[in-house]
Amino acid sequence: MKYLRLISIVCFSLLLVNGQTQTPKSHPCLILTKESAAKISSSIDNLPLLKKSFLKIKKTADNALSSKLDVPIPKDEGGGYTHERHKLNYSQMYACGIAYQITKDEKYAKFVKSMLLRYAEMIPNLGIHPASKSSSPGKLFWQSLNDCVWVVNSIQAYDCVYEWLDRKDRETIEKNVFIPMSDFFIVQTAKTFNLIHNHGTWTVTAVGMTGLVIGNDELVEKALKGSNLDSKGGYLAQINELFSPDGYYTEGPYYHRYALMPFILFAEALTHNKPELNIFAYKDSVLQKSANALFQLTYTDGRIIPFNDAIKDKNFLADEFVVAADFAYSFKGNRELLAIAAEQNSVSVDENGLRVAEALSKNQEQPFKWRSVEFTDGGDGKKGGIGILRSGERNDQLCMAFKYTSHGLSHGHYDKLTFSLFDNGVEVLQDYGSARFLNVEPKSGGRYLPENKSFALQTVAHNALVVDEKTDFNGKEEISSANHSDRYFFDCSNPQKQIVSAKENNAYVGVKMHRTIAMITLPNIEKPILIDILRANSETKHQYDLPFYFLGQFITTSFDFKNNTSQRKPLGRLNGYQHLWLEASGTTKQTQGKFTWLLNNRFYTITTAASDSTIFLFAQIGANDQNFNLKNDPCFIVRQKGSDNYTFISVIEPHGEYNGKDEITIGSDSIVKEIKNIASDGEKTIGEIILTSGQTVTICISNDNSDIKVKHSYKVNDKNYQWVGPYSIETIDNK
Amino acid sequence: MKYLRLISIVCFSLLLVNGQTQTPKSHPCLILTKESAAKISSSIDNLPLLKKSFLKIKKTADNALSSKLDVPIPKDEGGGYTHERHKLNYSQMYACGIAYQITKDEKYAKFVKSMLLRYAEMIPNLGIHPASKSSSPGKLFWQSLNDCVWVVNSIQAYDCVYEWLDRKDRETIEKNVFIPMSDFFIVQTAKTFNLIHNHGTWTVTAVGMTGLVIGNDELVEKALKGSNLDSKGGYLAQINELFSPDGYYTEGPYYHRYALMPFILFAEALTHNKPELNIFAYKDSVLQKSANALFQLTYTDGRIIPFNDAIKDKNFLADEFVVAADFAYSFKGNRELLAIAAEQNSVSVDENGLRVAEALSKNQEQPFKWRSVEFTDGGDGKKGGIGILRSGERNDQLCMAFKYTSHGLSHGHYDKLTFSLFDNGVEVLQDYGSARFLNVEPKSGGRYLPENKSFALQTVAHNALVVDEKTDFNGKEEISSANHSDRYFFDCSNPQKQIVSAKENNAYVGVKMHRTIAMITLPNIEKPILIDILRANSETKHQYDLPFYFLGQFITTSFDFKNNTSQRKPLGRLNGYQHLWLEASGTTKQTQGKFTWLLNNRFYTITTAASDSTIFLFAQIGANDQNFNLKNDPCFIVRQKGSDNYTFISVIEPHGEYNGKDEITIGSDSIVKEIKNIASDGEKTIGEIILTSGQTVTICISNDNSDIKVKHSYKVNDKNYQWVGPYSIETIDNK
Repeated sequence: MKYLRLISIVCFSLLLVNGQTQTPKSHPCLILTKESAAKISSSIDNLPLLKKSFLKIKKTADNALSSKLDVPIPKDEGGGYTHERHKLNYSQMYACGIAYQITKDEKYAKFVKSMLLRYAEMIPNLGIHPASKSSSPGKLFWQSLNDCVWVVNSIQAYDCVYEWLDRKDRETIEKNVFIPMSDFFIVQTAKTFNLIHNHGTWTVTAVGMTGLVIGNDELVEKALKGSNLDSKGGYLAQINELFSPDGYYTEGPYYHRYALMPFILFAEALTHNKPELNIFAYKDSVLQKSANALFQLTYTDGRIIPFNDAIKDKNFLADEFVVAADFAYSFKGNRELLAIAAEQNSVSVDENGLRVAEALSKNQEQPFKWRSVEFTDGGDGKKGGIGILRSGERNDQLCMAFKYTSHGLSHGHYDKLTFSLFDNGVEVLQDYGSARFLNVEPKSGGRYLPENKSFALQTVAHNALVVDEKTDFNGKEEISSANHSDRYFFDCSNPQKQIVSAKENNAYVGVKMHRTIAMITLPNIEKPILIDILRANSETKHQYDLPFYFLGQFITTSFDFKNNTSQRKPLGRLNGYQHLWLEASGTTKQTQGKFTWLLNNRFYTITTAASDSTIFLFAQIGANDQNFNLKNDPCFIVRQKGSDNYTFISVIEPHGEYNGKDEITIGSDSIVKEIKNIASDGEKTIGEIILTSGQTVTICISNDNSDIKVKHSYKVNDKNYQWVGPYSIETIDNK
Repeated sequence: MKYLRLISIVCFSLLLVNGQTQTPKSHPCLILTKESAAKISSSIDNLPLLKKSFLKIKKTADNALSSKLDVPIPKDEGGGYTHERHKLNYSQMYACGIAYQITKDEKYAKFVKSMLLRYAEMIPNLGIHPASKSSSPGKLFWQSLNDCVWVVNSIQAYDCVYEWLDRKDRETIEKNVFIPMSDFFIVQTAKTFNLIHNHGTWTVTAVGMTGLVIGNDELVEKALKGSNLDSKGGYLAQINELFSPDGYYTEGPYYHRYALMPFILFAEALTHNKPELNIFAYKDSVLQKSANALFQLTYTDGRIIPFNDAIKDKNFLADEFVVAADFAYSFKGNRELLAIAAEQNSVSVDENGLRVAEALSKNQEQPFKWRSVEFTDGGDGKKGGIGILRSGERNDQLCMAFKYTSHGLSHGHYDKLTFSLFDNGVEVLQDYGSARFLNVEPKSGGRYLPENKSFALQTVAHNALVVDEKTDFNGKEEISSANHSDRYFFDCSNPQKQIVSAKENNAYVGVKMHRTIAMITLPNIEKPILIDILRANSETKHQYDLPFYFLGQFITTSFDFKNNTSQRKPLGRLNGYQHLWLEASGTTKQTQGKFTWLLNNRFYTITTAASDSTIFLFAQIGANDQNFNLKNDPCFIVRQKGSDNYTFISVIEPHGEYNGKDEITIGSDSIVKEIKNIASDGEKTIGEIILTSGQTVTICISNDNSDIKVKHSYKVNDKNYQWVGPYSIETIDNK
């Protein structure tokens, strides 16, 4: 080995300055180890998926070798040249590191060395990135988050070639690249370093992995326990606080998959270097639970359920999901994840990926099942949660995701008791997600757009109750973060009658909300229906707005409306309302209002209980949007003015088919004939849904006691309603 | 056979009244024949696709047998119960007819008999359909067109069971079903019967097939030559006038596939019964050419290019396309159509389908190639045409379809010199198609919506020049129909430099238009660019509007604009402008304006030559649309006010990638640096496109002579431009 020749010359003083030296360890030691690299090398030819995955990395490495090295002075924001180039550079180094370990061809190691030495020339002279507008600016990138990702990748590359490098180059690289970057993270971005947040996780992972590779235990300790070593920040506190006991990640699914990657990578590295920590078992194996949970937080098309800031293009084929699937399979052997891995058509080139590839080569996969499931939120699992109800197989699954979590940190939305609906392969009642075009430079450099705050995270941008045109907690993050919704009950034990219920008492001062959503499969009715009951309870009068962000084409309504056909104005002035064009408004003389739309060749109808004081609004996103940053999606709003206590009872129903190819239209009519609000008060809500088929569905909810054993009995209009437990759903055929 | 027992009793007088008797012929005689049915029966087990196709029909037949017969009194419009039921009934009869012929199981024949006898009870008592609002009302349906389709199907069913029926039932059925229906078509809908139009074709096919089956030659003659036997109407005149010599159907692709079905079916029936007509060879085999042309009039996703009234869901998997593919293959053996048939996963259960299934069972298919091609319009091929330029393989093909046809009959749009652009599997610059929700009852009974006339067919609804906010020919169909655009040249001989050019001199009095569109593949540039040159020429001043109906999300512009962020009003009052919300308007101080949008993860930029008098408008479809009948799609309009002669020079450029899954964005910037209008007058147009890569594309068009041998030489600004033929495209690398 080269470094042996130089060992006597070099005084490795820096490590002594920054931490203690360690017993010389074997490299690589992070994700790959000497042993796993050898195992992969020897078995790769017999494992097609592993080989394919490696060849993809090797292709990146080979492309790197044949292209000109460029380490430009940082200048551009997201999407710009220097931004993309530094991203490319870490990918190339990472790929060459892996390629070197698997093939032992020195040309790959040389590349890593050359590039790291180039960075070693530049980094000591870098200040804060010139295009930075972030609260946590980076050096190589406009935000330090990207710098952390850069380190997480390049430290792995360095680890892979460590033993090949001579001591002098190691010293140069550590002194001028990795130590300054760690210093930068610990000192200059100290707030982020100690943050309980995905950004914090990437930071401690970068620093912790650096510490493990260069043998600086102080860095590792700070990564684990925070820069003050007080355990208020750092990796362990992050695990404690960010993950609920069942693995839900508090920022929501989009950042879940993003944060989970460094959590897993650092855990792997710790396992190889500090097995005594037994990090995989930490908090009852919560990382493994979280990796499994991640896949249950997708719809059957593989896209994540986009609560909070989310970019909807993200699906389970992305690299982060490959890491998660391989880790989760490797740890507990869940064979359904092998089916995901097969669909990903890729594995990590590490020991986890090796296990997955071996299992797939023996055809051990089982079809992945998307299940009805509840996840709690909060480190202790006591800060609300998410309830997901599903019906149907993958090719046509109705999926309702109901959110009653805590705020979700800086990427949280003010969307208490919102829900999303998916069906027939697509989103039907959407969560807008975030207003952002990731890495698209002309769109604010790919950052969150101003409309993310002014619209996307506001309550009215969601399928959630808005009181007096205001936003939950008046849009104050610190107050919202100090509160959370409460689960009331969740029951998916009967696939024909699944139901979830939650309460929110703090979002609006003086208004309590209680929402219950049931997914009910009826005899002889093709698709399940949803019953959505939202009770608002106050001692004073309010305006209650309940939006439904339907996707698709308006078909018809049961009520007349005035369409503002020759002039459009915004629906309101503040809190997101300024971004909605008021298209039309209507009222009805019937006891319910009905709206039907068409999406992806299927009809959907919302039927909602109404009175002559109910106003139906149609709106379109896009007002006060100078730079066309928002998507012009439509919205149907049920408005109840001047109400103290009011209960919205709605049925959402997929039905029929529009087949333009074969020119067949069937079932374009809703089957809901009437919705009756029998009673709704502090004790109970009783609703009746009368269908054109002659069936009546009676739903009873106990509003004051969710104990499953308590008996309820009420007499309303001379009729007795009796049930046991928090709810009952009964269907009678009157024919 | 049953009928032998009754033969002596029945006097088959009706046929004598309505036409001459014929030598008794063998049945079935229309599409299936005794021989082909026997061939199919004997070979079906060895031909998987034929078997599958038959089993699908048999399933319909079996379902029919196990369900309750219902022949309701006609009442509902499109999408309603009686409408859909009568459609179901003819499908069931048709299926049972085929099932009987292939299996010889009498239960199927019995079903056809029972149902036809039910119709025989009802039809003589029917007047005009009560919900009819059509100019050509039907009896069973709201428009007679559906009645014709009913007959075309049920006469085939009758033909299939003819020999099984006894003479008395035959008499009852013919007297009370088919003869009254034919009478109705010939007498009460005489105008339609003699129409040169797809509706006419369905009508004569219904009557002609009836004549062939019941042996009434008068019906056949009228079907062929019109009700007055003067050859001004009828099947042969329709072939003469509706199809151009190369097979383009004048109503455009959407009605092409619809009309072609009866054309083919009647041709098959005539071939079996009147071989002396040699109908397949008629007009130089134009029906076969037309069936082939139909597939070239689709994009690579299988959808038809939606010029004129078109419903965009229609793709080549639909039944009409199965009939066309099988016919076209059967006739000329084009093996590429076998690939289409394989994708359709279905064949006609007739001799054509048998041949296709046989060929597929021998793996004779070749990949279907979508080609650059020009189709002429008009019976003589001299009424303009359509020029389609394509580049790239199926998975990512850039396709530009330029329309310079005649009006296209009653479903024609006022869209002279419009074009559509497809790329990357989707429509990029759209043709709106028709405003219609086929068979969706709440949407005007599934008929064309009022907005079809007030918006969809107006000029401003297209990517076509609008003069003074008016519509071509002031929207007068009779004037538009008396005129047509003229092809100027079309050249796809060099795949790197494809070009098409056409002129329109009559759409606006006093304004001549000349549009040329080139698809150019440049060295080292991933995707081809389009150059679009539209020269308007007048002696008086006008406002010229050139809309581009882009699909996707606005990204950025090179110019500043004022966004009407707090109030939206319609762009105009008439001619479709009343349906466009004016979103924003801008101007530029540069010599070009640039607009970039994002669609399906690819960027697109239109760069257009501009001056300080150019106004850029952004608009959205949907104003003055009381019932939300229109899709709220966006539009970019380049407006030139107060101009007599003006030449729009634009470059349309697909570029880069937005990858939300992998979080990579590349190539989001346009490569067009500058567009120069060097010269544009009666003799020539010379434009230069300067690219950021250092390349310059010079395009020269001779405006007064399209002869390919003529030399052109002009000196402009001390530079010589010389070329031979109607155009030249040269690329110089200035680096």
